[in-house]
Amino acid sequence: MLSVHSDEHFMKEAIRQAEIAYEKGEVPVGAVIVADNRIIARAHNQTEQLNDATAHAEMLVITAAENHLGTKYLNECTLFVTLEPCVMCAGALYWAQLGKVVFAAQDEKRGYSLHEKNLLHPKTKVEKGKMEKEASKLLKDFFKNVRID
Amino acid sequence: MLSVHSDEHFMKEAIRQAEIAYEKGEVPVGAVIVADNRIIARAHNQTEQLNDATAHAEMLVITAAENHLGTKYLNECTLFVTLEPCVMCAGALYWAQLGKVVFAAQDEKRGYSLHEKNLLHPKTKVEKGKMEKEASKLLKDFFKNVRID
Repeated sequence: MLSVHSDEHFMKEAIRQAEIAYEKGEVPVGAVIVADNRIIARAHNQTEQLNDATAHAEMLVITAAENHLGTKYLNECTLFVTLEPCVMCAGALYWAQLGKVVFAAQDEKRGYSLHEKNLLHPKTKVEKGKMEKEASKLLKDFFKNVRID
Repeated sequence: MLSVHSDEHFMKEAIRQAEIAYEKGEVPVGAVIVADNRIIARAHNQTEQLNDATAHAEMLVITAAENHLGTKYLNECTLFVTLEPCVMCAGALYWAQLGKVVFAAQDEKRGYSLHEKNLLHPKTKVEKGKMEKEASKLLKDFFKNVRID
């Protein structure tokens, strides 16, 4: 049985968020933020629904977690996200000083790690590839069916 | 007399937003977005007030302008901002495909231009140094009086 405190459990919840995005016709990216082994915020990409290029899952989930905790800093928190963050989201993670970032699929076009300098906060730990297959399949299925400009 | 269509006029309005931030105890950065020679959105840094590390003036003004126009893309718009955008905001400007960015003061610690690659959209024009003195003075006065972590 999958422990409710395992990274797999939390990434599954992020993938569930990505599925919600998929069902709404959004690029399927989902995220959750965990503090003390508990999910304190969930979000999915809403750029189409909100007509807002900044409404990535990570941006929304950071704001939600900060509201929940009443603080600008998330250094005790872990972000689980189904796709590698872009430059904008990496910048946001820097400001929020995330404790740890776990992402599933790599973004070979827009991933923050394509840049020479580390864009995240120097104290932020990173783990990649967690449930990559499941997260990538969702993205591939989406782009097979929908043509995005 | 200052034309209401001049860059100076629009930057003055951005500085007015920065002054509002200053009065609220926020790092004094302000921004406006202009379309067809008209201001369609105004915002100031609200990271303290909203307890949200992502609530930079640029992020808020981009979302407001997109809401106003009902589109994710701002390629016909100009952003006037009192401080050079950070990596997060440059990433947001990339996604929104801003037509032009005019900024006043340079940010020697966190400015996007410290990075090797151009983080903005390749089509985005950039102008810097517009009313730099006024914008910098506001920031210097702020940091003289308030100690920020």
